[in-house]
Order: sequence, then C-alpha cells, then structure tokens
Amino acid sequence: MTTLQEAERLDAGDELAGFRDRFVPITDPGVVAYLDGNSLGRPLRATAERLREVVAEQWGARLIRSWDERWLALPERIGDELGRVALGAAPGQTIVADSTSVCLYKVLRAAVALRPGRDEIVTDTANFPTDRFLVESVAAELGKTVRWLDTVADVGAVTGDRTAAVVLSHVDYRSAEIADLPGITRLVQERGGLAIWDLCHSVGALPVELDAAGADFAVGCTYKFLNAGPGAPAFLYVNARHHAEFGQPITGWMGAADTFAMAEHYVPAPGIRRALSGTPPVLGMVGVQEGVALLAEAGIERVRAKAVALGRWVIDLADAWLVPLGFTVASPREDDRRGGHVTLRHPDAERLSRLLIENGVLIDFRRPDGIRVGLSPLTTGFAEVRAAMARIRELAA
Amino acid sequence: MTTLQEAERLDAGDELAGFRDRFVPITDPGVVAYLDGNSLGRPLRATAERLREVVAEQWGARLIRSWDERWLALPERIGDELGRVALGAAPGQTIVADSTSVCLYKVLRAAVALRPGRDEIVTDTANFPTDRFLVESVAAELGKTVRWLDTVADVGAVTGDRTAAVVLSHVDYRSAEIADLPGITRLVQERGGLAIWDLCHSVGALPVELDAAGADFAVGCTYKFLNAGPGAPAFLYVNARHHAEFGQPITGWMGAADTFAMAEHYVPAPGIRRALSGTPPVLGMVGVQEGVALLAEAGIERVRAKAVALGRWVIDLADAWLVPLGFTVASPREDDRRGGHVTLRHPDAERLSRLLIENGVLIDFRRPDGIRVGLSPLTTGFAEVRAAMARIRELAA
Repeated sequence: MTTLQEAERLDAGDELAGFRDRFVPITDPGVVAYLDGNSLGRPLRATAERLREVVAEQWGARLIRSWDERWLALPERIGDELGRVALGAAPGQTIVADSTSVCLYKVLRAAVALRPGRDEIVTDTANFPTDRFLVESVAAELGKTVRWLDTVADVGAVTGDRTAAVVLSHVDYRSAEIADLPGITRLVQERGGLAIWDLCHSVGALPVELDAAGADFAVGCTYKFLNAGPGAPAFLYVNARHHAEFGQPITGWMGAADTFAMAEHYVPAPGIRRALSGTPPVLGMVGVQEGVALLAEAGIERVRAKAVALGRWVIDLADAWLVPLGFTVASPREDDRRGGHVTLRHPDAERLSRLLIENGVLIDFRRPDGIRVGLSPLTTGFAEVRAAMARIRELAA
Repeated sequence: MTTLQEAERLDAGDELAGFRDRFVPITDPGVVAYLDGNSLGRPLRATAERLREVVAEQWGARLIRSWDERWLALPERIGDELGRVALGAAPGQTIVADSTSVCLYKVLRAAVALRPGRDEIVTDTANFPTDRFLVESVAAELGKTVRWLDTVADVGAVTGDRTAAVVLSHVDYRSAEIADLPGITRLVQERGGLAIWDLCHSVGALPVELDAAGADFAVGCTYKFLNAGPGAPAFLYVNARHHAEFGQPITGWMGAADTFAMAEHYVPAPGIRRALSGTPPVLGMVGVQEGVALLAEAGIERVRAKAVALGRWVIDLADAWLVPLGFTVASPREDDRRGGHVTLRHPDAERLSRLLIENGVLIDFRRPDGIRVGLSPLTTGFAEVRAAMARIRELAA
C-alpha cells in the first residue's frame, strides 16, 4: 500500500486538508516537500495580514496608547488561550515571553529555590542541548550536582530525596519518543522533587495535559507546530499551587506588581505575571496568537490523529522502500509512543540530507546519522510525504 | 520668539524634516502631537514593507533554509551596524538579543563574575526600575551588597576597592540628564571596578562613544529613538578586552561554539556571540535593522543637533507660557547636559497628563509630578511641539 492512489485516498479522507490553504503558499517551485515544520512551521496568511494591521493601526495610529489598550495583556491572554487549546492548563498559569532558553533558566532557578534542602538536578543525556547546558550551568552556579539519565525510562532509578528538579523533554527531539509525562511527574513528586517539562516537540502536535498530570513547570517554543514564526516568543507554565512562593531571578519591570509605579523595590506581581522580565515582544506575539487560533479551530485531537496517520505513512513507506537500502526507523513504531516526526537513520545521512535539501526535500539532519522527517498536520499532505520518500529512495539507491 | 512664524522658520530650516515621510503616517485625526517617541518610536514604512517581504519570501518561500542563509547572522550583523552608527563600537562587540532586562541580567552576572574578590554593586536611587530591581536581586543571589547613590555625581564617593560593578543610565529616564560616561567609566576602572551602561534613553538620540570611553558593558533598547517597534529586541555590548573570559548564565544553544553540533557540554562561542541564549527573534529584528539603517542615513550628529534644538524650543515655550502657570523645567537647561526629552513638573501633572492624552497630545506621565515631553528628531517637528505646548497652556490655565 505505497501507491500514489493510496496517498490520494489518504489525502481525500483528511479532515484537515483544507487548513493548508490558510498558510502562505510556498512559491519556490523547487520545493518538493516541506518536512521541517517541526523546526520552523510555515507562515499563516492571517499572521501576514495581522502584522500589517498591527504595524499600521495599533503601532502607527494608536501609538503608545496600544500598550494600555491591548499589548500589556497579551502575554497572559495568549498564554491562557495556548493553555486551553494545547496544554490542558487552566487560565492564569501560562505566559508568553522570551525564548525557550530564557524561560527554562527562569523555571529551573525557580524550581531549585523551592527545594532548598536538595542538591541534585536530573536530566537525560539525550535531552536537547539547551536543556542539558542549562541544567549543567545552573547546577554549577548553585553548587548542585547533575544526575544524568541514559534513557528517560531510568528516571525512577536516580530520583530520590536529593532530587530538587527533573528536567525532561516530553517528546525527544531526535527519536520522537513520547515520555510518560503523568507517570514521571507523579514519581518525581512522590519523592519530593519538582517536574519541569520541555514541550518544544509536543506542543501543537499532541495533547498535553499539564493540569491533569499536576506538572510543576513547563516551557516550550511556538515556532514549530504552532507556526508562530522564526524566533517567536516561547511560553512558560507554572502550576497555580506554586504561585504564592515561586520567584525567578530576572526581576525586570514587567514582572513587578505595579510596573508603572516605578517602585523603590521589586515586589513580584501576583501569579504567573511575575515570570515576565522585559517589555513583551509584540510583533512576535502576533504569530503566536494566530498559530494558537488556528490550532483551536482544527482541534488538537484531530491534529494528533493526523500526526499519527502521517507517521505511520512514513514508516510504511520506509519499510517498503528504504529499509532495503540500509535505512532504519529510529522512532517508535507504536503510534502512542511517537510524537510528530519520524527519524530515519542511515550511515550516509549527512551527505544524503544535503542532497535531499538541494533536491527540494526539506528535512533536518540530526547528528550523527539521523534524517528527521517532520510532519505538520496542518500543512503536510500524504502525497507530499510520498513524493519526498520517493526522492529519498532515488537519491539513496 | 514663541510665534507660529518662528516654529515655521525652524521647520523650514530643519535638515531632517524630510525623514518624517519615511514613517507610517499617523492616520488618527485626533493626534495633535506625538511626543512619546522616547517610549515607543513610530513605525517606519520600510519596516512594514520588509515585514511583508520577510514573511512571504524568507519565511514562506525559503522556509527553514533562511536560518543558514540569513537569520543566524542577524544578531551580530545588526549589532555591528548599530555599534558603528550609534554606539561608537567597533565590530564584534554588540549583539541584538532578548529584552533589556534579560541583557542587563546577563552583563551584570558577567561583570560580577569578572571581579570575584569584590562584594559591592553600585547604582543610583533614581535609576530605571528594571536596573534597580536587577541590581538588588543579583546582589541578593550572589551575596553582594548594593551601594546606592543619591545622584550619579556621587559615584566617586562610594566606589572603591570593594566595587565589582557600577550600573548607571547614560541618560536619566526622568530628568534627561546626561551622565559623564567617559569620566565615570575611567573613575570606576581606576578603582578596579567595571562600568555597565544602560543606554535606553541615549541610543539613537545622541552619540555614544563606548570604545573611546573604554566602557566595559552596555545594554539598551531599540523601541525608543531607534523606532524598532513595541518590545523589539534589545542589544548588549561587551568590550573586546573581556571576550576571552566573560561568561553569562543563560547558556542556551545559540551561545554555544557550535550550535548544531548538539555537543555533550556547553562550550561558549568565541566573542560576543556567547552572549546569546535562545533562537533569535527574526520579526523583531526587522524593525531594528530598518531603524538603524534610517539612523545611518540621517547621521547621529544631525539627530543630536535637532534633539538639542527641539529641547531648547520646548524650554523656551515652557518659560514663556507654562512657568507662569506653575510649571518648572525639571531637565537641565544646558544643552550639553540634556538628552532627547524634556520633563516639566507640575503639582497637577497626573490629571493634566490624562487630559492631554485625551486631547491628542501624547506625552508620558512619570510619577510623582512629571510630564515627559519626548523629542524624536526623525519625526518630531517644531510646529508640532508648539501646538502641544499651546494645548498644555490651555488645559492648565
């Protein structure tokens, strides 16, 4: 079942197929398939239009008045909507700000401060570089010890009464393996630690249920499956039960209780707003707002169902066409263990990736030998995936 | 000399008058005068146009490839240009990133780490809230002591062999008083400390000569006199002599020597790039790039000359019309001590400010009793200022 007819049948049955028209068309005729929406999602037409409007009308005509009229509320307003649509988070716990790195620094510092008697931070050796780097440097600056996991599944073996915080990715950026967020959160908390989740590769690709899991903190980016734009602001979640006591070190005016009081000393704002530091990035937030609105329309359950179907399609094609050529499927084959991309391994992946990109199949190379096939349910089609896989077969043969 | 003819004479002789057409026109007919460009500069037409192009062509058509083709280099490329045009900084020392608050946190942590044997951080009680808040919280987290100055001029009295770093604003956000950046830098360094300058209210309004002064670190925002847009990314300067040894705590992947190596441990990039943390905010940087380009065209010396003339015009009108009504001029009367705005004090300033804004004169109220008249040489006209001052007289009478 790898025929073009099968691809067309799948596209015809795709409830989300119409959403592709909501995006700026790819005008480059050289692009065969865009399978890198998990690095950079495509632009929405609405984002382009709203940027024009925000510049001309809110910035250009209302000028400084737009801060009070709209912009100051955006980090929380968009955060609440993101929480509702994608994170399973009740209002008041999610805020849009900074980059994922800065957000992770803040929540990691906040978490460690909430567990003063504990001296270990746990993460895994396969975690995304920013996460590992920040865990190491925060541990170093605070005199804590890093406990490394070889696989996320080992978390039970190293957490204990010395564990201050555990920093893990919900979906692994290479393998797409989904971590057991509720189970690990429970385990960490039973041992008195705090669970910090990096949602970069899950937000907008599969349902996340932070409140239901009782997660302590989470961060994530918006420029992948949320299609918010290159370097769009990140988000940060702090469970309401920590609001009375959590703090973060970058105590800028936007996190103060009364920003324009120009007060003598910093008094943190009540609730999630104290996670802010500097002036919110308005143009970047436009893309987040539109990306979240489109996801709300599509529904995360339908997005997840299509991501699963696309992943299965990639694996079926890989088994038929690429495994005989020396490829292996490095992502879980079980649908409920796999996120929104599929990684194929091949000894010659680096050279092949370069060739693929030159030939209009836009994928990611991930060292040492991974070709990462990103699947964005709102834009990726089944025939598009098939054309890409055919090109991989052709170039690898 | 407060007549309309005089205003028209000044406008006719204004070499920068033509630059006003480079901005998106204010379509709101209720706006009499925009005198808040020192809080939020107006949008350039070029920014609106370039945003469209970046979304459609770079993001929409080149997709992920734009990171390698252009975007990854932008923080340094725009930083270098900003350094050349506005900061007196040779290439490789300025980078565009984050918010001013996050940048200040980074350089303050970096500076203190460079002076491990010293336990005091100096700032002044009138400094901008973010600066004071960050000095206090960084001092608290590192076990240092804050030494408060009542006025910047007292800096000599409190700096000494315990001083790790001094954090001051180049131009005071309320009074517009210009600090002696070269003199204070020299004094602090003679005593073994490091000078950190907040340039928010000077960058783009008057020439800054960081290299000539041998400043250690600087930060600043781009959404005031650089007109880069609401919440546009900030910048950070680190003098080249600190590049071999400075570090900062938010060790995200973009500050690593080889971002895509996904290395086992964080190795900082050589030079200024190690000041980066997360993925650079591309849409926000578009406004910075255009704002800096326009300033390059106008020339910072001409901008400064017009800022001085506009400030003198405000003071002349205030003396003739407003001082008799109970106002005082709270900014220095000497041109070379005054930055790009003039603050007028009045016991009823808060109510008057509200009235002014309702009547289309967009100024800032600054507690307790200041009306801040912002003067943006690229957009503000002399007749515009006169109309605003006439309205103030009318409402205060």
